[in-house]
Amino acid sequence: MNAAYQRLAARAARLAALGEAQSILHWDASTMMPRGGGAARGEQLAALAGLGHEMMTAPDVAEDLAAAEAEGEWASANLALMRRAHRRATALPTALVEATTRANAACEKVWRDAKAASDFALVRPFLEEVLRLQRETAQAYAAATGLSPYDALMEGYQPGVTAAEVEPVFTAYEAWLREALPRAEELQARRGAPIPLPGPFPVSAQRDLCRRLSLRVGLEAEHSRLDESLHPFCGGTPTDVRITTFYSDKDPAKALLGVLHETGHALYERGLPAAHARQPVGESAGMAAHESQSLIVEMQACRSDAFLAFLGRELHKAFGGDPAPYAAGNLAKLWRRVSRGFIRVDADEMTYPAHVILRFRLERAMIGGDLAVADLPGAWAEGLKSLLGITPPDDARGCLQDIHWHDGAFGYFPSYTLGAMAAAQLMKAARKAEAGLDAALEQGDLSPLLRFLRANVHAHGARLGFQDLMRAATGKPLDPADFTEHLTARYL
Amino acid sequence: MNAAYQRLAARAARLAALGEAQSILHWDASTMMPRGGGAARGEQLAALAGLGHEMMTAPDVAEDLAAAEAEGEWASANLALMRRAHRRATALPTALVEATTRANAACEKVWRDAKAASDFALVRPFLEEVLRLQRETAQAYAAATGLSPYDALMEGYQPGVTAAEVEPVFTAYEAWLREALPRAEELQARRGAPIPLPGPFPVSAQRDLCRRLSLRVGLEAEHSRLDESLHPFCGGTPTDVRITTFYSDKDPAKALLGVLHETGHALYERGLPAAHARQPVGESAGMAAHESQSLIVEMQACRSDAFLAFLGRELHKAFGGDPAPYAAGNLAKLWRRVSRGFIRVDADEMTYPAHVILRFRLERAMIGGDLAVADLPGAWAEGLKSLLGITPPDDARGCLQDIHWHDGAFGYFPSYTLGAMAAAQLMKAARKAEAGLDAALEQGDLSPLLRFLRANVHAHGARLGFQDLMRAATGKPLDPADFTEHLTARYL
Repeated sequence: MNAAYQRLAARAARLAALGEAQSILHWDASTMMPRGGGAARGEQLAALAGLGHEMMTAPDVAEDLAAAEAEGEWASANLALMRRAHRRATALPTALVEATTRANAACEKVWRDAKAASDFALVRPFLEEVLRLQRETAQAYAAATGLSPYDALMEGYQPGVTAAEVEPVFTAYEAWLREALPRAEELQARRGAPIPLPGPFPVSAQRDLCRRLSLRVGLEAEHSRLDESLHPFCGGTPTDVRITTFYSDKDPAKALLGVLHETGHALYERGLPAAHARQPVGESAGMAAHESQSLIVEMQACRSDAFLAFLGRELHKAFGGDPAPYAAGNLAKLWRRVSRGFIRVDADEMTYPAHVILRFRLERAMIGGDLAVADLPGAWAEGLKSLLGITPPDDARGCLQDIHWHDGAFGYFPSYTLGAMAAAQLMKAARKAEAGLDAALEQGDLSPLLRFLRANVHAHGARLGFQDLMRAATGKPLDPADFTEHLTARYL
Repeated sequence: MNAAYQRLAARAARLAALGEAQSILHWDASTMMPRGGGAARGEQLAALAGLGHEMMTAPDVAEDLAAAEAEGEWASANLALMRRAHRRATALPTALVEATTRANAACEKVWRDAKAASDFALVRPFLEEVLRLQRETAQAYAAATGLSPYDALMEGYQPGVTAAEVEPVFTAYEAWLREALPRAEELQARRGAPIPLPGPFPVSAQRDLCRRLSLRVGLEAEHSRLDESLHPFCGGTPTDVRITTFYSDKDPAKALLGVLHETGHALYERGLPAAHARQPVGESAGMAAHESQSLIVEMQACRSDAFLAFLGRELHKAFGGDPAPYAAGNLAKLWRRVSRGFIRVDADEMTYPAHVILRFRLERAMIGGDLAVADLPGAWAEGLKSLLGITPPDDARGCLQDIHWHDGAFGYFPSYTLGAMAAAQLMKAARKAEAGLDAALEQGDLSPLLRFLRANVHAHGARLGFQDLMRAATGKPLDPADFTEHLTARYL
């Protein structure tokens, strides 16, 4: 490695440390900060973001990137990732970045009111401005990267996957679902309704249980925290992961399964290669890869029959009362319930992809100039009708439900379903590699699964692109058949 | 204000935002961070400190400082403060800064063991290296500022006060104490022993009481937090102040009085001029000024007879039991007890200055080259004997007790006693300006005091130097007579 590479690596380490600081400050803002600190926190985060951008786009970085030489797989991948990040950071004129920041903030603010009032007209001009700038941004990224505009936006979330790859996968899933969903509903109806969990569910008992289970499935107390925030997330840094959740004293499922989901994200961060910490190659392989890790823990492992048996015992220990509702079979009925709903975040794993497919098609059309914001509510209703056979009663339960577009995030949605599919594929490979995986799950032990994921996913960091990562871990690129096979086994 | 000034102000705002981020990260490290995050936090803080130093010492800053023109009192003071900060930031060669960071960290680490084992020989070579570098640092600052080496170090903590001003103040106090202390002890003995508080003192009740009282004396819930850490402090930012304390279930006094002390610091931060936020002139007037604000709340207001009456009622409400020990007179006996001890942090307000005078003289001699580290234990014992008539039984209770020198902090100690003296002087002025001050204290109401401090201390930020601030608030520079008058009234 020559001097130019060494300088780039030193700069990357500093940039990453800056990013870690931002991550902790974001966590603090969501969990600890008194309300009155909000304006100052905005200044702090803006200063850090500004410094980071200046470091990334300083003239000597371009010179070093041109002159850098890397040896070996890791350093070569690292350099390629630096070049990609630099291409993106320098692709946008400052005026566009500033206009986007302002437009997103303004739209997001109005969106909160618009959603509460289910009044799309309120947010429409703001969303039009956001979209106009996103299209300009996509063009600028496209010019710098050689990708199509929509793919160039997707690259910001899940590099190395194109819309051309996603579209046939989604089309195939749509066809499968059209046939499978009615059958799953019929079977479910025949099995009868679940017994509701009796309660009460004191928040302090939930908190203890969530933390205990999060540690039980593999997180280390010395490297993590569990706190509360309005919107659950996993933040912090690889050696100091911060999970949050939100407790309802009426239903322990949301916090519990949510914490297990975030624990999957956290375990990925914990398993990233420490030798490459604070280098691009030491980061995760993207948002779809990240979502695959949360979903393999939550959906594949923790909602499996085997783990539900363990979980039922733990819940009964924590909350007492009649043991019958805590039987694995009843928990499966409760927590693996298929239902055609309007709300993505409440969707089951079978219909969830339909929500994503809808958004993927709409946002792709918007970025491509084929769908105007004014026509969004109609296109939404039509799309949902076609995918799930239902029509949203209002825009609050339609195109106003998600924050994403209203905050300028176009190109993110596919990651959710790519992650779900990758999770099924990885689980199948893990079961093959680790014979005792399901027997362990029955004891609440995820270590065989985790061993597989650490070696085959986490340890690669961002050295491999998403498809190469899937190939290395499972012997093939993303294959949605493993996902439908999983759904067939579980629901049909 | 010309363009050069505008650029400097913009840069200062960014630097301050960076400093705020560091402050929150420090708070997090002491209160929330899981242990495993320590190494990464070090990287994050080092990156922020490095960026801040680079911003401060960039070549165009010197050009702008030379060209800047400011109009009006605030901007002129701001520019002068920027020039001072720049002089200090550029005074030290990078190699010296790095050597100091390393030597301080190494010494501090060994000091922990040396203190635990009361083995000065263990830390001696490390402290020698720290001192050697501090002397070099003092020389470099002196050359840049025109101050004497020791004054140049003091300037880093409390600008605008010189050892030549401090020495006669301390000498006079020493003489006063020699006569007053035996009389106070005699009086105290005659009054008889206090009744100990009965307990128990559940930590959760203490936590609630501390937070409630902190808000009662003027802190706003929307702009503050109260948490726990091993060593209590006040951190955060002016709109988001973070107080910490440490609870013992055996004695509620330490946490309670500690929280009131930190609340004094916090109220100062809250009262700084918002119009000059994130500019040097909007900061506090230094460490002595800051200590005066914590001590005026804790020592002057909250340990007054008037406030103790209120506090006794609150404590009895919180912990119940026999009301007799919670009478104001008994609390005064408990919490205003004079005693010749070895440990500075446990000292009462009468003997505390003796501990500071000892350290001031020793560190001044060490920086001046008149006292070698090898001779420190002997000089310490001799000095304490002369000041308080007692001899430490070992170095753990002697020159190993404080972290300061072992972490490279020379020139800080005088601030404690300058602050105590300023607090007495400000309290006297406040009583004159606010007729109802003591009547309000009896109801647990600090608002008259706070009104005075906000207008006469907090609102000035760093526009006035320490002595000018005292003049503006009290009509005279620091006058230790007000402090001895306060002690005489309270103890004699």
